[in-house]
Amino acid sequence: MQNSCTSVVNKVVVVGGVAGGASAATRLRRICEKVNIVLFEKGKNPSFANCGMPYYLGGQIASRDSLIVTGVDTLRKRYNIDLRIETEVLAIDRAQKQVLCKTPLREYSESYDKLILSTGAEPIIPPLEGVKNPNIHILRSLEDMDRIKQHVKPGKRCVIIGAGFIGCEVAEAVTHAGVKVSIIELLDQVMPPMDKEMVTPLQNDYRSNGVDLLLQEKCVKFSEGENGSVNVHLESGKIVNADFVLLSVGVKPENKLAVESGLQVGPRGGIVVNEHCQTSDPDIYACGDNTEIEDFVLKNRTQVPLAGIANRQGRICVNHIFGKTPDSFRGAQGTSIMGGFNYTVASTGASEKSLQRAGYTSYDKVYTPINDHAGYYPGAKRMIIKLIFDTSKERYGKILGCQIVGEHNGIANRINAVAMAIQAGMTVFDLEESELAYSPQYGSAKDPVNMIGFIASGVLRGEQRMVQIPQVLANRSDYYLVDVRTPKEWQSGHFEDAVHIPIDDLRNRLSELPKDKKIVTYCRIGMRGYMAQRILNENGFDNVLNLAGGFETYERLYK
Amino acid sequence: MQNSCTSVVNKVVVVGGVAGGASAATRLRRICEKVNIVLFEKGKNPSFANCGMPYYLGGQIASRDSLIVTGVDTLRKRYNIDLRIETEVLAIDRAQKQVLCKTPLREYSESYDKLILSTGAEPIIPPLEGVKNPNIHILRSLEDMDRIKQHVKPGKRCVIIGAGFIGCEVAEAVTHAGVKVSIIELLDQVMPPMDKEMVTPLQNDYRSNGVDLLLQEKCVKFSEGENGSVNVHLESGKIVNADFVLLSVGVKPENKLAVESGLQVGPRGGIVVNEHCQTSDPDIYACGDNTEIEDFVLKNRTQVPLAGIANRQGRICVNHIFGKTPDSFRGAQGTSIMGGFNYTVASTGASEKSLQRAGYTSYDKVYTPINDHAGYYPGAKRMIIKLIFDTSKERYGKILGCQIVGEHNGIANRINAVAMAIQAGMTVFDLEESELAYSPQYGSAKDPVNMIGFIASGVLRGEQRMVQIPQVLANRSDYYLVDVRTPKEWQSGHFEDAVHIPIDDLRNRLSELPKDKKIVTYCRIGMRGYMAQRILNENGFDNVLNLAGGFETYERLYK
Repeated sequence: MQNSCTSVVNKVVVVGGVAGGASAATRLRRICEKVNIVLFEKGKNPSFANCGMPYYLGGQIASRDSLIVTGVDTLRKRYNIDLRIETEVLAIDRAQKQVLCKTPLREYSESYDKLILSTGAEPIIPPLEGVKNPNIHILRSLEDMDRIKQHVKPGKRCVIIGAGFIGCEVAEAVTHAGVKVSIIELLDQVMPPMDKEMVTPLQNDYRSNGVDLLLQEKCVKFSEGENGSVNVHLESGKIVNADFVLLSVGVKPENKLAVESGLQVGPRGGIVVNEHCQTSDPDIYACGDNTEIEDFVLKNRTQVPLAGIANRQGRICVNHIFGKTPDSFRGAQGTSIMGGFNYTVASTGASEKSLQRAGYTSYDKVYTPINDHAGYYPGAKRMIIKLIFDTSKERYGKILGCQIVGEHNGIANRINAVAMAIQAGMTVFDLEESELAYSPQYGSAKDPVNMIGFIASGVLRGEQRMVQIPQVLANRSDYYLVDVRTPKEWQSGHFEDAVHIPIDDLRNRLSELPKDKKIVTYCRIGMRGYMAQRILNENGFDNVLNLAGGFETYERLYK
Repeated sequence: MQNSCTSVVNKVVVVGGVAGGASAATRLRRICEKVNIVLFEKGKNPSFANCGMPYYLGGQIASRDSLIVTGVDTLRKRYNIDLRIETEVLAIDRAQKQVLCKTPLREYSESYDKLILSTGAEPIIPPLEGVKNPNIHILRSLEDMDRIKQHVKPGKRCVIIGAGFIGCEVAEAVTHAGVKVSIIELLDQVMPPMDKEMVTPLQNDYRSNGVDLLLQEKCVKFSEGENGSVNVHLESGKIVNADFVLLSVGVKPENKLAVESGLQVGPRGGIVVNEHCQTSDPDIYACGDNTEIEDFVLKNRTQVPLAGIANRQGRICVNHIFGKTPDSFRGAQGTSIMGGFNYTVASTGASEKSLQRAGYTSYDKVYTPINDHAGYYPGAKRMIIKLIFDTSKERYGKILGCQIVGEHNGIANRINAVAMAIQAGMTVFDLEESELAYSPQYGSAKDPVNMIGFIASGVLRGEQRMVQIPQVLANRSDYYLVDVRTPKEWQSGHFEDAVHIPIDDLRNRLSELPKDKKIVTYCRIGMRGYMAQRILNENGFDNVLNLAGGFETYERLYK
């Protein structure tokens, strides 16, 4: 690298700050001292921690200032960025290579050599009757946050419409501040990107912490209630009254500038960019929630509004402009995590849902309930891991996705380990051999990641023969269920029509079992069930399946 | 896979339980119902959690029974293993394929088709005068543990000789139980596998929690003190009196059977095995702490006494015997973690020490102090990450090793992510692009793993130009130090002969800086220092270096 920057690019204009735009602008300056950088920001804060807003609302974060990531002064002085706050970009003139901008006082044009669009995504406001009520809010900017914050007082009632990340986070945060929350969700589950069964413990968690969770309910209109309250009318006829309402039904790419200037936009509104984050105009780049990107696993086009992805794209834009590496975006895995009251959910890679949507059928899945660290050391917390892997010849055993739900501890750890494995194109066989950190406080000699690898690999090797819980529940009469747990476990709950043969007695009681039926063995988590399946296989029972994830998985995810 | 096992192996004898042997024996049974499995165990417990023993001593683990991983009954009934406890194997007759065994009552021979040696490692007992004092202990078996447990009472004084994993863990655990601990360590640091600077915070942690840590002190003899106490005599002349002593100076492979039967053994005593864990006799396998294994990164031979590795080897032995996969051991990364009082240390892959021992010079290293999660969310804890990476053409940017020290939280998470990256052969450039789980409670949009990747990649791309702290400390007059932090930070401590120019003023004060000197910029963690270095580079200062890890790294690791 030469000492000073030799780029022929003189002026880069960035539209929009926060994750992508601010990352791009600061990276630009780090690379080149001479380039003119103009950053337009509609609001007052070009770089703030929008992911922290729910927790400021709930009071977990006390200082509003702490949400300012890089202040106006810092961007101007340290990075020598020509920052124009409260300035909206109205249009792009691609032929003249300039943008038309508007301040509270005037309109003017600004030229660019390269333009980076980091306009983000805007919350969807459903066009319902009464939606303009001043007590109905969205949460996008710090100003939105300030407005909502005024409502957050003990005893106030809040309706949250939409149970995605923001809805769930705000619900948890403001409940701690004494607000009584109802969530209205159109689907039959919270956290739509995750598979339905995996959020069951989270839903129970929200309900047992006092959140009124209304699933499969559609909001049809709003009306004014008493004392300035809002009535939320549901299609089912229910009316929920609240002091304030948060609309968090999703976001859509803010693509107005792109569309109006003729840039290519995808079917769901995301600006189409190539691997260098260039739009259909090579002098215009886009990064962040406004873009359509490649799904790392499925290789199709998707939209993933996550801050980490925006940051990476922001760097890619700049690197490509200046001929630096890396200049190609690798695609998005959708790695994410969301903390509820006593449960956390996390995900990386493909879900079953996304596979099904993509028509991808050559996959299998396994589950295991497991402790975050050695059970004999105090404080061990429970999680359930779901691993989805490829069964095709071409991609045999390749990890497609992973989801985890559990009692907070150790979940980020394992989802990150699997996220790295997916990035590296690893297989379930690699998870068996992974060497992860173990001491009794932090893990197990066979880490949860190893364990889920053992199970998945055992399935592919034909050692583990699994049946999924919904399959059994839907066809109970087809299966002969054998519960191999201890008498005490059996007594505390079991499948109604199962027979009980503790694993340690199984070899002596083989004659009790039918050879002409499909036998399903099960235990608490699937380990003894697997041993039972093996014992039976080896003793001439050909038709034996182990219940995936065991009775605990049934009780936590399906009951 | 066929339903029932078709192996021609009729009888497998396993010598020694715990991690490797118990894993092998149970895996054997899962694979094959017909094979005879004989497991010899010298003690009473073939499968117990030896990693939990320090915490039973300290009372953190209340139940001794909880340390039994797989009980005698379970091994016999569930796994149909012919378990012979309190039976020592005295010799191997390789020609006859049998072992000579001894119970408290008799001696007898037992034949084998395949033999698996899982004899583990034994604590080294230095041959010092007085070492046979009954109040001097080792900690290997549950019986050892029971003996030590009797001493653990408030006010008792304990000397621990050796500050490796076991020494450090026991010191922390029994301190919580009111025992007054002194640690005597021959080296100039605790946790010998880690690089010296990385354990500085841990050493401070132990000292500030009341542990008397004596480094570079050699124990030369023991004598009897008053009231049954032990005097520990040091070469320096010091005498430390204690109620009891724990010897934890390391372990050596228990290789007697192997040596006496003519199996090949390495220079440090580890049984030599091939990738299938076969010894020089193909009918005899070995797994666990008694073996010499391949270092995954350095590809040389090493000994790594960790439970997870023993488990993996145990499975490999069995898979190879039965023609299953995987049947090759991939080598050991040495991934490990150890929790102290308020600090945890973790490591994976090569250390600088191990690289230097191997004569490997084409590497570089970077440091960053960083929060485990977003600083604006309460409870963020600090860690320092050290990343070592390859600078050779052939392995450009490949991650060689990583070490982390910090306040517990989020360390297992990041060491595991990097451990996966090493297993996958990834580079520092892959860490830049990793997509890890972010929400304010669990991470940052730019995760610590991304951040250390940015820094290392920036070094390789020539954007970041680093100087290491010891280099500056040893040659202070060679460098012109520029502190670019705020006035407040400067006032709270800085390098003595530095000049102070806050980063945001730097562009206006360039004329104050000499063009003919080696300038070193520094800030708290290295980010502003890097920006300053870039500003100077771009303004005609060719000879500018950023202090690796910044002033915080200096204060925490080197002060």
